[in-house]
Amino acid sequence: MSRMAIRYTPQDCARLLEAVRTQQPLVQCLTNAVVTNFTANVLLALGAAPAMVDIPGEAAEFAPLASGVLVNLGTPTGSQRAAMLEAAEAARRAGTPWVLDPVAVGALSLRTAAARTLAGLGPAIVRGNASEIMALAGAGTGGRGVDSTDTPAAAAAAARSLAAATGAAVAVSGPRDLVFAQDGSAVGVDNGDALLTRITGGGCALGAVMAAFAAVTPDAALAATAATGTYTVAAERAARQATGPGSFPVAFLDELAAVAPEDVEASLRLAVPEQAPQPEGVR
Amino acid sequence: MSRMAIRYTPQDCARLLEAVRTQQPLVQCLTNAVVTNFTANVLLALGAAPAMVDIPGEAAEFAPLASGVLVNLGTPTGSQRAAMLEAAEAARRAGTPWVLDPVAVGALSLRTAAARTLAGLGPAIVRGNASEIMALAGAGTGGRGVDSTDTPAAAAAAARSLAAATGAAVAVSGPRDLVFAQDGSAVGVDNGDALLTRITGGGCALGAVMAAFAAVTPDAALAATAATGTYTVAAERAARQATGPGSFPVAFLDELAAVAPEDVEASLRLAVPEQAPQPEGVR
Amino acid sequence: MSRMAIRYTPQDCARLLEAVRTQQPLVQCLTNAVVTNFTANVLLALGAAPAMVDIPGEAAEFAPLASGVLVNLGTPTGSQRAAMLEAAEAARRAGTPWVLDPVAVGALSLRTAAARTLAGLGPAIVRGNASEIMALAGAGTGGRGVDSTDTPAAAAAAARSLAAATGAAVAVSGPRDLVFAQDGSAVGVDNGDALLTRITGGGCALGAVMAAFAAVTPDAALAATAATGTYTVAAERAARQATGPGSFPVAFLDELAAVAPEDVEASLRLAVPEQAPQPEGVR
Repeated sequence: MSRMAIRYTPQDCARLLEAVRTQQPLVQCLTNAVVTNFTANVLLALGAAPAMVDIPGEAAEFAPLASGVLVNLGTPTGSQRAAMLEAAEAARRAGTPWVLDPVAVGALSLRTAAARTLAGLGPAIVRGNASEIMALAGAGTGGRGVDSTDTPAAAAAAARSLAAATGAAVAVSGPRDLVFAQDGSAVGVDNGDALLTRITGGGCALGAVMAAFAAVTPDAALAATAATGTYTVAAERAARQATGPGSFPVAFLDELAAVAPEDVEASLRLAVPEQAPQPEGVR
Repeated sequence: MSRMAIRYTPQDCARLLEAVRTQQPLVQCLTNAVVTNFTANVLLALGAAPAMVDIPGEAAEFAPLASGVLVNLGTPTGSQRAAMLEAAEAARRAGTPWVLDPVAVGALSLRTAAARTLAGLGPAIVRGNASEIMALAGAGTGGRGVDSTDTPAAAAAAARSLAAATGAAVAVSGPRDLVFAQDGSAVGVDNGDALLTRITGGGCALGAVMAAFAAVTPDAALAATAATGTYTVAAERAARQATGPGSFPVAFLDELAAVAPEDVEASLRLAVPEQAPQPEGVR
Repeated sequence: MSRMAIRYTPQDCARLLEAVRTQQPLVQCLTNAVVTNFTANVLLALGAAPAMVDIPGEAAEFAPLASGVLVNLGTPTGSQRAAMLEAAEAARRAGTPWVLDPVAVGALSLRTAAARTLAGLGPAIVRGNASEIMALAGAGTGGRGVDSTDTPAAAAAAARSLAAATGAAVAVSGPRDLVFAQDGSAVGVDNGDALLTRITGGGCALGAVMAAFAAVTPDAALAATAATGTYTVAAERAARQATGPGSFPVAFLDELAAVAPEDVEASLRLAVPEQAPQPEGVR
């Protein structure tokens, strides 16, 4: 897989976090009903400004004012699907970077069709778990509900094909998160904690964070990598204090607000995709 | 009331929790906008897998894939009502057990009509507070908003009539929770804490937990009892650490993830319905 | 600005909190999807009873049963806009006091039109940040998303004009919160903490608390002041324990449940609008 490894450094990612904190990007979210509160709080904790504008007639009006847009298909009502098309088209016209999160595509035909249409509207980043990325690329039938039944490594070919077809960076979440650039080169992130999978919205809110980072750089793969790195470093710090899935998100929001660029630089474990992961604390 | 007491044991309930942890049932939730996040987190903490699939066109497609389904009428938009009918019918056809929670029926005519239609579609369990169960059975006019103005004991006749008419187990929440089997036999659960009534979703999320338990046994009354027992034992443990309604749900999710089958067996206080409650810690 | 200062005392506000705790007003909320859970939990922690009834056909049926109503335009779907008109008209007919929160009006034309129509239906209180109040009064073009780009002092003329035109008390949130009575007289509240702006729903839930207080007094400006005072005193106490935006709402809900009328009387810092703020702890 590493024939084309991306050579980002932890310092590149730390600098991007610094830019998010300074510029406080305004992130428009069209996301699912389950995670809208958590997502807004994640953006606020990070230092960005959330705007959950997702109704037809407003979605297109707002996208040119936003610094970045998230389109997440978790609970896509008819009204929201119309608003998503509006927002994606308006974002593309205005040059606002936007992120597509095709939650649970594959098993459900309605959202699968919506995701395919949206994927053609120029997302900067497509983010999902391995089963979602494979289903969107036409290489699988989806996972079990919102859970992946495939590994990020298994999704590599599908992710590269999706990146080439859409022009987007493609981020695949898992124990090792992988980010693929449009040219197929890839980088891995080895931070994070399993508690992120024991709360709802752990992945969905990361999509919003990617939209915040995409607002401060034209390099979409770097935005996805720095967003993943910041998010998972904060998760690791939170997991050390948490005693379960109730106390974890509380600590996570505190840590997301507290984590400094130098913490990201010190703790981020970027990987050449095919190498074995480094243990935490060793770099 | 005890002419027909159900003789479940704490050990029966503990075994069912063990089965939930092992099988990780996939629970489709069509629930209200207020509690969707908390409900998903409760299912994840318990060890089940939530899927909040509640839009027309997807609801019926997903129900046969789900292990159990929750239909909760808390904020029943037109789109959601259509999806609920779809999901209930598809669940019945597929043999997927489903739970009906008729939130605030009685005072509001639109959801009362919807609840009556749904009650005829073969729910495995109907769950509500005393006023809701009485209103659904045609024996009362509902409570004050989402709060009951009647006691579970007062609702006993209505619950038995509802169980007989629908074929469902009927669970009535209150200081002593009561579960009625289809044949009118009953069991009480004396665990829990008043803090569960000081947070939104305390009752609604229990409906989702019942759907998870109904997925692992054909005995719907046992599923309702074991779900109530696990939930209220975790609530008691959480209440010992909490200092108010903000810290309680945090501790509750931690405890729901931590509570072991042997804790349920040791702490569950099942009651013959007409007996006085046993004090906590004495069995 | 103080040519017409309102001479409320902390004791007036403390007595109103006592009345809320005793009467437990039933507050119907038609609010945005982002904050519905937090808003319900805030009302429960305060001692009021939330009922999130916001769908057409139910909204009008419920408003006469409610003690107070909140209409918040944060995510105004078509269905919700219809329900808001219903609820406001039914509340006016029934004499139920209702609160209008025109979230993010100005930048978005659809909600701006809705807010102007609603403002003509007799709200008891209009609550917003400075940019929202100015935009609703026709004196500005709105803020940046949901954030104000103006100060409460700058919004004073707009607030007075809005109060005169609508008959409502007008509350403008900011570092110093200001409340304007219908006659243009004003009072300031100097409590609070910046962490309230680092969580979503900090302002939105205050609108619901105002509806609870408006249910127990005919003096809408006093209701807005006492609600703001109770809310911000609890926020100050919570901020002393919190380590960030994750732990703050947990502590805030605990404090909202714990704060006693005598705490409000002892800690509330009411201000004559043009005076410099008093430091915390000095009265």
